[in-house]
Amino acid sequence: MAFDQKQMRIPGPTPVPHEVAAASARPMVNHRGPVFKKVMMDVLERLKPIFQTQNTILALTGSGTSAMEASVANLVNPDDEVLVLVGGTFGERWAKICRAYQAKVHVLDYTWGEGADPAQIADFLRRNPRTVAVFATHNESSTGVLNDLEGIGAAVRESGALLVVDAVSSLGGVELKTDAWGIDVVCTASQKCLMAPPGLAFLSLSQRAEQRVFEVSSPRFYFDLRVYLEWLKKHEPPFTPNISCFFALEKSLSLIESEGLGSVFARHLLLRDMVRAGLQALDLPLLVEDKWASPTVTAVKPGFSDIGRFLAALRETGVELAGGQGRLAGQIFRIGHMGSAAPVDMLATLAAIEAQLGGGGKAVSAAEQVWNRARQGKHVGGQGSEGHFI
Amino acid sequence: MAFDQKQMRIPGPTPVPHEVAAASARPMVNHRGPVFKKVMMDVLERLKPIFQTQNTILALTGSGTSAMEASVANLVNPDDEVLVLVGGTFGERWAKICRAYQAKVHVLDYTWGEGADPAQIADFLRRNPRTVAVFATHNESSTGVLNDLEGIGAAVRESGALLVVDAVSSLGGVELKTDAWGIDVVCTASQKCLMAPPGLAFLSLSQRAEQRVFEVSSPRFYFDLRVYLEWLKKHEPPFTPNISCFFALEKSLSLIESEGLGSVFARHLLLRDMVRAGLQALDLPLLVEDKWASPTVTAVKPGFSDIGRFLAALRETGVELAGGQGRLAGQIFRIGHMGSAAPVDMLATLAAIEAQLGGGGKAVSAAEQVWNRARQGKHVGGQGSEGHFI
Repeated sequence: MAFDQKQMRIPGPTPVPHEVAAASARPMVNHRGPVFKKVMMDVLERLKPIFQTQNTILALTGSGTSAMEASVANLVNPDDEVLVLVGGTFGERWAKICRAYQAKVHVLDYTWGEGADPAQIADFLRRNPRTVAVFATHNESSTGVLNDLEGIGAAVRESGALLVVDAVSSLGGVELKTDAWGIDVVCTASQKCLMAPPGLAFLSLSQRAEQRVFEVSSPRFYFDLRVYLEWLKKHEPPFTPNISCFFALEKSLSLIESEGLGSVFARHLLLRDMVRAGLQALDLPLLVEDKWASPTVTAVKPGFSDIGRFLAALRETGVELAGGQGRLAGQIFRIGHMGSAAPVDMLATLAAIEAQLGGGGKAVSAAEQVWNRARQGKHVGGQGSEGHFI
Repeated sequence: MAFDQKQMRIPGPTPVPHEVAAASARPMVNHRGPVFKKVMMDVLERLKPIFQTQNTILALTGSGTSAMEASVANLVNPDDEVLVLVGGTFGERWAKICRAYQAKVHVLDYTWGEGADPAQIADFLRRNPRTVAVFATHNESSTGVLNDLEGIGAAVRESGALLVVDAVSSLGGVELKTDAWGIDVVCTASQKCLMAPPGLAFLSLSQRAEQRVFEVSSPRFYFDLRVYLEWLKKHEPPFTPNISCFFALEKSLSLIESEGLGSVFARHLLLRDMVRAGLQALDLPLLVEDKWASPTVTAVKPGFSDIGRFLAALRETGVELAGGQGRLAGQIFRIGHMGSAAPVDMLATLAAIEAQLGGGGKAVSAAEQVWNRARQGKHVGGQGSEGHFI
């Protein structure tokens, strides 16, 4: 008997809570009528505290990549010099998109499994003052690294370049202070920490990014943010939007609001620490050291070689994990712990992993200890607040 | 008391049948796992008989416009000469996208409210042999015109130009013989005759269109069909897709299959004829004469001036219709009769319209007569077959 993804623990899409899925199935409405206008404006407004911004937020019907491409198409002219920080496949994606738009792309490679160094970025920008934009990845989900975005923001601010951030696998699960850290564009998507199905992407635009949108000549139509900004004044999207996903977000944002953003962040840190403790108890080498460890996804570089077979065997038990991407394909596996994920889910996932590897309870026990310390208020991420999952 | 869109009769999104909405709310799955691969390939395969094609069909997560832009971005180089047929806002959209990609755009304007003339197209192409592609609209939903696509196909075939068709508001409700009529690219979307929520777009590519994709240099990334074709070999999408909408389509395609495509087309013709008969009984002038009348949407150019107030009053009764677009804004209203729509829905919609205008039953009675003739096998669209809605 095969079980259907009882634990879907990949780095997105994440499990959609049943009340969110039910909301998404609400009867269809006119995207130009008053009902949808209200839903859309409500969702965009309620995303602002999660983005921690006063900036305009726009919605695109597409995957997270659509928001990334819209950023490039609207901020970069052919032959513009840009800096791209690359430490995994999502950093590489920024570089590919920038090259597709014929920018002069400078790549700052950082080690896959570590974060980018703000001092290096500041140094590059001092030596290359014509750089118009820096493209960064907040959470590099191909490696499980959370970058020091506050530090990157400070490094870029000095130079005057725009800072554009892929926060697809972090926003809503991890602290991200868009305005305080000076981030001009933050891109994210519906299907990660926001707990909705895939199919909507969002981006926030600072005032100077908004100005820049009107100065750029790169070809675009579906991604032409000038048109989105114009239609937003009427509380309408320019093209037929993913209405069901907006319905889903109305509900999933309520879940985040009722848990409280601080508790959501603390929960993600707890889940990360439980997973890491459990894996270490099984002597499974983690790809990323504590300093850079992502609160939303953990990568493991195990001793055994046939990771595909391991993941297939786990899938049969109802636990869905992810393999490696790009140059890490076949070398790592990844556990997603973002969005709708509770401590008991981590125990179940770890228990399934150790059932495959013969851990004899060590992983679950180690994770339990982390959880217990958190419940006693000793978890560093918890900061004394307890989310309703904890 | 206000009623929530009991009759959502706009030209898309269309009402989502409750079993389709329920299917869309099924638990989320890994888009790189075996469950989703099977769903995606199943949906793409089952679309082929509806497209009436053996060509490759690709799915994009986006609105119908995303498939239109992908066609342009992958088939047109800057400075290429293209012909765009414009008889409404969706023809204008083709022209705007082609201009955004810096093509040399020739526009063949045809009267808003009539179809394009194949002879004129053939004539243009004889005089402009360097035209690389012709962009046409099958069903111009801004006016309610169904173009003679077979004739357009024959006119274009002589010239060797590619024929690219926006079939967003026709495919699945109206006969469209992609292969027999020689159409290189057919674009459509999930939220019209296919009865699913918005958020997926599809396009079919003929062999020579597929070749052309690899020869074009226009900047694109999310819309780069080379990448979609490559990933399709692995039965995977390149970017996180709208998984829920694929689940919805699995179910909505079953509804179409069990009704039978011929019956579905006959039903749309019947609905059109019922609506037109009812409106004419109220002395409401139709924008389009019988010859060009769309089976999926009907435009009315009423004598009264405040159409906005009329539509708002109808909305209060639970009937959602659409206004005009572009140069027809404020001059017409439009009734959608596509996808999940039955004869009784047309009666309800007409009854609500005549309740506003004081028709005293004339509209419903005229539509009933059309329906009764169809049930007696006398309806021309029915061709002897009876769909389960009839």
